[in-house]
Amino acid sequence: MNNIKQIKEKDILPYLVMKPIIKIMEDVFQNPDKGQMPPKIYLELDGENDFRAMPARFGNAVGIKWASIFPNNEKNKFGPSVSAVIMLNDIDTGYPIAMMDGMLITSYRTAAVTGVATKYLSKKDSTVAAFVGCGFQTEYQIEAILNVRDIKHIKLFDLDQAKCDHLVAIFGGNITVCETLEDCVCGSDILTTLTPSRKPFIKSEWLKPGIHINAIGADAEGKQEFEDNLGNICNICVVDDKAQAFHSGESQHTENRDNFINLSEVVNPDFNRLDSDISLFDSTGLAIEDIAVASYIYNDLKK
Amino acid sequence: MNNIKQIKEKDILPYLVMKPIIKIMEDVFQNPDKGQMPPKIYLELDGENDFRAMPARFGNAVGIKWASIFPNNEKNKFGPSVSAVIMLNDIDTGYPIAMMDGMLITSYRTAAVTGVATKYLSKKDSTVAAFVGCGFQTEYQIEAILNVRDIKHIKLFDLDQAKCDHLVAIFGGNITVCETLEDCVCGSDILTTLTPSRKPFIKSEWLKPGIHINAIGADAEGKQEFEDNLGNICNICVVDDKAQAFHSGESQHTENRDNFINLSEVVNPDFNRLDSDISLFDSTGLAIEDIAVASYIYNDLKK
Repeated sequence: MNNIKQIKEKDILPYLVMKPIIKIMEDVFQNPDKGQMPPKIYLELDGENDFRAMPARFGNAVGIKWASIFPNNEKNKFGPSVSAVIMLNDIDTGYPIAMMDGMLITSYRTAAVTGVATKYLSKKDSTVAAFVGCGFQTEYQIEAILNVRDIKHIKLFDLDQAKCDHLVAIFGGNITVCETLEDCVCGSDILTTLTPSRKPFIKSEWLKPGIHINAIGADAEGKQEFEDNLGNICNICVVDDKAQAFHSGESQHTENRDNFINLSEVVNPDFNRLDSDISLFDSTGLAIEDIAVASYIYNDLKK
Repeated sequence: MNNIKQIKEKDILPYLVMKPIIKIMEDVFQNPDKGQMPPKIYLELDGENDFRAMPARFGNAVGIKWASIFPNNEKNKFGPSVSAVIMLNDIDTGYPIAMMDGMLITSYRTAAVTGVATKYLSKKDSTVAAFVGCGFQTEYQIEAILNVRDIKHIKLFDLDQAKCDHLVAIFGGNITVCETLEDCVCGSDILTTLTPSRKPFIKSEWLKPGIHINAIGADAEGKQEFEDNLGNICNICVVDDKAQAFHSGESQHTENRDNFINLSEVVNPDFNRLDSDISLFDSTGLAIEDIAVASYIYNDLKK
């Protein structure tokens, strides 16, 4: 254990650049046979708090993310609701080799996967991107989508106006803070939802042909942003991982999932959509994404 | 993450004393309602190598052990077959607070649980203790049993004579290295098996009324030391955790497990055995044991 390298945040920061991380995530989903990932396990404490153990392997990278979700931390003035540590191990001996904070890596890899899904699933001429829920993660999601589509107009909605203002300050330009949820959703080419909601609030009637949806918010049992029939509304239904998305993602609320496919089946140049399609990407976040990014940073630092 | 305390091996060593750790394990099994432990998950690589994620809570202690088992490390001259890191988190915020090597803690807590089981399950006047398999773990197992019973005679068996000699050098006195497996098993009051066997090799006919068995070796699917009918031979059948033992322990090879009970049901002064009983303790090793010991060390170091 004396040989475990502790990688500090200052050493991670230079690697947190969206374009290369999108490339790594594309590689992960283009090579599903290089990956291994048992279902994550939850240790649920009293109330809403839980821990998640997320082991995975991708190629020669292997390790675990150990994360905590304590939703009331902010209210209790403890600090962020989430914490995460990533541990990497040697593929030949099993020995631990490095550990690092997993918070920023999680944010970047989550957004980068949205970028990958949007690149392959949204209309190529998409220009209007809407974001519902403007918390910590949304900045990265906007950055990812700007990386893969020539967006002319960003629309935001959040119950907390200050959170929207923060994003306007960052991105400026053609950005609109919408007065109603419906205004935000309707007319967008790409809709990305990022709320911790446990009740549906986005109406199916707002989802018009041509739209691509990134459903990011739902990542645990009971979470839900869209009405129950989302799987029927969308004719292209993609998840990051079936087992996990059907358990924890937005897809948990759709009964008929026969036509759902994994992102790995879509991430190739031959995939095509019609302008009239409605596509869904249901993202729950995979351990394999964390391990791939953490390993990329570790290996580059070794050089 | 900059606040995660790295506890070094030299700081752990003073705490690795069998008597207090037996007391902590007794406390764990006497208070099952203070514990929470989802089933451990395995990340199985090619061949025999695997990783295990073991999260748990005991009282205010919460965290995870992340262990690797690479059986060929020794043959390949890489080093030990096993590695383990324990991470502790704050119960109020979820944030990681400490990490430490988990190898020696694992050895001590495993042996200490054998000590607890032997204290409550074996005949009080047991004097002969046999150990089959004399690898790294056996030294601690002997120490644990010497802590709870007035042992006059220790018998050892291993295919590798050098491993037995090592233990004779440590414990000296009334210790016999047996020439045959049968010699070792027969006539013992307490039999502790510690091999990585995947085939039964201890015959049921050798197990006489009065014996207490600690079956430690089997801790993964496919592992087996005793013949299939062990559950019928023993009339007191105890496991550390039913779900885990029935999946990974010696008990996986017994069909009828209706009369199997958890160690927590036995660890009280009212429990009694007859001199004619044959008792079994099937130990697979619980995450909760690791977290309880790691937290004890962390909290004491803070004082």
